[in-house]
Amino acid sequence: MQITFTGTAGAGGVPLYGCECMACVRARQQPEHQRRPCSALVETDQVRLLLDAGLMDIHERFPANSLTAIVLTHFHADHVQGLFHLRWGKGAKLSIFCPPDPEGCADLYKNSGILNFLHLEALKSFEVGDLKITPLPLNHSKLTYGYAIETESGSRFAYLTDTVGLPEDSMQFLKSWRPFSMAIDCSHPPKINRPANHNDYNLALDIINKVRPQKSWLTHLTHEVDRWQMETKCKLSSNLAWAADGLTVQI
Amino acid sequence: MQITFTGTAGAGGVPLYGCECMACVRARQQPEHQRRPCSALVETDQVRLLLDAGLMDIHERFPANSLTAIVLTHFHADHVQGLFHLRWGKGAKLSIFCPPDPEGCADLYKNSGILNFLHLEALKSFEVGDLKITPLPLNHSKLTYGYAIETESGSRFAYLTDTVGLPEDSMQFLKSWRPFSMAIDCSHPPKINRPANHNDYNLALDIINKVRPQKSWLTHLTHEVDRWQMETKCKLSSNLAWAADGLTVQI
Repeated sequence: MQITFTGTAGAGGVPLYGCECMACVRARQQPEHQRRPCSALVETDQVRLLLDAGLMDIHERFPANSLTAIVLTHFHADHVQGLFHLRWGKGAKLSIFCPPDPEGCADLYKNSGILNFLHLEALKSFEVGDLKITPLPLNHSKLTYGYAIETESGSRFAYLTDTVGLPEDSMQFLKSWRPFSMAIDCSHPPKINRPANHNDYNLALDIINKVRPQKSWLTHLTHEVDRWQMETKCKLSSNLAWAADGLTVQI
Repeated sequence: MQITFTGTAGAGGVPLYGCECMACVRARQQPEHQRRPCSALVETDQVRLLLDAGLMDIHERFPANSLTAIVLTHFHADHVQGLFHLRWGKGAKLSIFCPPDPEGCADLYKNSGILNFLHLEALKSFEVGDLKITPLPLNHSKLTYGYAIETESGSRFAYLTDTVGLPEDSMQFLKSWRPFSMAIDCSHPPKINRPANHNDYNLALDIINKVRPQKSWLTHLTHEVDRWQMETKCKLSSNLAWAADGLTVQI
């Protein structure tokens, strides 16, 4: 399967509105360093699946009938805001697989338009075309799932945002699911105290060391992480990489 | 004062996602016919005021400190969705004048970031720089204000979306406020039955005939209105015009 990181930012993006730090200045000067709302496109011969809908131009990037479905990690605005426009479209319903959050976001459930919200059960696999997908509970301030995605030929990719650490059942699932590749929330540079809703760099590495994927990409990055990386020139080990908007990888 | 129609569409925009009607096909082929979320920029020597925040790229169009304030008509997503991103910015607070809607939209009040929401009282004027602005109650499915905007030199402009007809107190205000120019909701082509939440063409003209502005622009337009205009080749009288994205007028 092919993964494209369509967005790699935490809420606020890079550059951050009004920020003049070195990472934000660089992103304004060099668009390849810009980061849009965290999301990824999963493609196989049979399906084209968008993970999260925070990109505000998804209606332009993905014309009608070009997506098989959208899978949401959770209903915070920076992960669903592209749906506010898309929903008013015409034509076939678009399946939106999502956690069973009773509130959703604003009036998306009430005025769902062409969107067909399908609530998922944690750790209960479902299929979209040739993909088998298992929702993994994450630790966040709103009901959130990561996803373990597997092709018929056995390629495996885990997408884990937004989270701080991992619940034990998700950790156990991933430990028994090897070998696989992974994208993991890394919203903060190393912090002394455990952050509240997102991994810092240390927590992301701790998860990686425990579940031991073959390859990991750090995503849901902020201007603070980019600035820290610029300042420290932090080198990643060969099985680890920073995600970047537009980066495409084969799993 | 100078008015720029930064967006002239109802929810869904033109082209509408997945629609192949003649208006939507034309808008895809000829970008000058595209319509983005209804909004307008009001500029004087002293202020730069954005009416509504549904444009999903306001953080790119209007860099930090380039807007004096934002004034919201109401909290439907297509009028506020650009704030979801903007709020996480850094620096000075941005004043968001708005109706006293207790709910707002999603978590905008709870996580307001750099936004400073300021609730307005109907028919009670407030000042921003050299502008005097009076909130006018409108008829809509959510608490909604139109705005009567006046410069120190006496130029007057009324911005009236989203509404179906006008409440009597707003009608009386405008009748005694002449002479002025106006932008008015025209979401539907002529309908046999009175529409629920937005003017059709007939209701827009009825309001215009009652309050008698010097010049009116029809806005909050949909692909249905554009198609009807293409089919009927409807000619407007000289004191009336279709708004268009990017159109700039002097009041």
